Amino acid sequence: MTRPIVGRVAPGLRRTTGTPAPDSESATARIAVDLLGGDHAPAVVVDGALRAFQADPSLHLLLVGPPEAADRIRAAVDPAHHARLSVLTIEITAGEHGADAPAPTAQDLADACVRAAVGAVADGLADAVVSAGNTAVIVVSAARVLGRWPGVRRPPLTAVLPSAAGRLVLLDVGSAVDPDKEFVVMHARLGAAFAAVVHEIAAPRVGLLTIGTEQGKGDRLRRALPPLLEAADLPAGARYVGLIEGNDVVTGDVADVVVTDGFTGNILLKGLETAYARLGPPGDPDAVPPRAAMLLGVGGTVVVCHGAASGPDLAAGLALAAHLHRRAAVTAMVDHVVNDKQIPHNEVSHDG
Amino acid sequence: MTRPIVGRVAPGLRRTTGTPAPDSESATARIAVDLLGGDHAPAVVVDGALRAFQADPSLHLLLVGPPEAADRIRAAVDPAHHARLSVLTIEITAGEHGADAPAPTAQDLADACVRAAVGAVADGLADAVVSAGNTAVIVVSAARVLGRWPGVRRPPLTAVLPSAAGRLVLLDVGSAVDPDKEFVVMHARLGAAFAAVVHEIAAPRVGLLTIGTEQGKGDRLRRALPPLLEAADLPAGARYVGLIEGNDVVTGDVADVVVTDGFTGNILLKGLETAYARLGPPGDPDAVPPRAAMLLGVGGTVVVCHGAASGPDLAAGLALAAHLHRRAAVTAMVDHVVNDKQIPHNEVSHDG
Repeated sequence: MTRPIVGRVAPGLRRTTGTPAPDSESATARIAVDLLGGDHAPAVVVDGALRAFQADPSLHLLLVGPPEAADRIRAAVDPAHHARLSVLTIEITAGEHGADAPAPTAQDLADACVRAAVGAVADGLADAVVSAGNTAVIVVSAARVLGRWPGVRRPPLTAVLPSAAGRLVLLDVGSAVDPDKEFVVMHARLGAAFAAVVHEIAAPRVGLLTIGTEQGKGDRLRRALPPLLEAADLPAGARYVGLIEGNDVVTGDVADVVVTDGFTGNILLKGLETAYARLGPPGDPDAVPPRAAMLLGVGGTVVVCHGAASGPDLAAGLALAAHLHRRAAVTAMVDHVVNDKQIPHNEVSHDG
Repeated sequence: MTRPIVGRVAPGLRRTTGTPAPDSESATARIAVDLLGGDHAPAVVVDGALRAFQADPSLHLLLVGPPEAADRIRAAVDPAHHARLSVLTIEITAGEHGADAPAPTAQDLADACVRAAVGAVADGLADAVVSAGNTAVIVVSAARVLGRWPGVRRPPLTAVLPSAAGRLVLLDVGSAVDPDKEFVVMHARLGAAFAAVVHEIAAPRVGLLTIGTEQGKGDRLRRALPPLLEAADLPAGARYVGLIEGNDVVTGDVADVVVTDGFTGNILLKGLETAYARLGPPGDPDAVPPRAAMLLGVGGTVVVCHGAASGPDLAAGLALAAHLHRRAAVTAMVDHVVNDKQIPHNEVSHDG
């Protein structure tokens, strides 16, 4: 595997890890954006970055990717604002691999871009990262370089869906597709902390997604989980409300947090998001949450957009990342989930 | 377990098995309806039965359940039409169980009602059965008393969803929640036959529901299935079109038949149906398919409604059952799936 060339980062952007996060929505937020992530990169990422940059005068972007894409963003921005743009160039040149090695593919370059963007957070170059790249690469590199919170084995991708009652947290939506039951219990704890911190819900209601509310309904995983969830130490005063069904995700009446495996969650999310995109949301059309997911349980703010994300979706993902950073959401969630246990410094950093 | 009392069936309704199905939408269709199925039984079943009965002058109903519920239907019907109503009374009386045995519960009575309604098809008292009762009881009793087609180990529940492009077949939606991969391959064959026979689609496109279209995406089951589906002998000129995602179920652009496990299918179905009920369907509002599923791969016409079905949903389920009988759909699907293999008479009956 060839290695990305890293360069052209303004020295003034470098910060050490552990910088306290600001607490105002107008505070500076330095977001690394993966220019090669997604099915329509870099065009839609360039579009989304420009939208977010123009909407938020305190947003600083670290553009991670090939120089041509970064140049398109710089060229579209008033030079008076160039101080808010930095570039982390990622290129793979032919000379770097041996004659017998396979030539690097476009996917290799895209994956290198994901890793560099995540690495920028670990290195203190950015406060958060946004990528529409390969989910598995994002999850694995975030777990490796940002660290996982104690007890988190597989960080869950966590989405917010509009519902008739408002909005709800759905996790996992694509990280753990064959989860052990212990993963799901931890995901319930992480989802409860997210609802408490990001949605400011007191005592969130956590439901387990299954196919019927009678005892014993569901597949092997779902039949094993209820006693574990009933016994789980849910943070933030959250309570387990039992089995819920697909319709309850649309109404939002019975749970604030819906926990499931990453396979089922991904399929339901893509189905409902597509339905709402065509038909309108089930609740307030002015309060539709961003179509972006947060990776929970890692030592930094990581926002993941769909591979098929549009420019506005990318812009919403960047705004979400800035908001989460400014709210110091990771630190607050750690306080809820890890409580007063000893947290190794290298496992939780960058947001607190 | 106490036994239902069976009685008051008009002798003229008895037919032997193997009666050829009629071929006209105005031909007589004798449908057994489970009066105790569903969360709001018998009220919504009574409502649905009356709606269907009044809409279709060639519909004969075999009312299966407690006499009070059947009496409410008879009382609401013009006596001139009473010849189209028969009653199969199901009661559990206290004297039938020993002093030490637990008293029969409402669920025991409801399950007895399901079995009697399915049994009425096996006995030639009805051409098809409609129930909103316990799915597992319906599936097991249908498999036992109607028989399964050769090669069918778990009969799949098969739903039709509206899509932006028209409609699509989704299976399984709740029968096989932890399927072996061979089940899913058979379900792909059954779904293709359903699309060809009931939707009259030439060369149906069959897709496998998963979380990404790249090679190797998905959980253990989904990673194992593509080579088996590529090699499968799909009937009716159907072709396997590969991996599809949740959004493709809403658009309907890439597949006519979507195959998945019964857990994922049930959750996606309930989510999308609830979204469409609130927001309107994604396609033609005058062409919304009934919110009812058909049990495929058994020797008779079995239609399953949601536990939460409304009166209009029940009426649509009854109309679907009559339509499937009048089209001789089971016989036509058997011709596609079983081809010219020897079919034991006791395995395929009642519709062909």
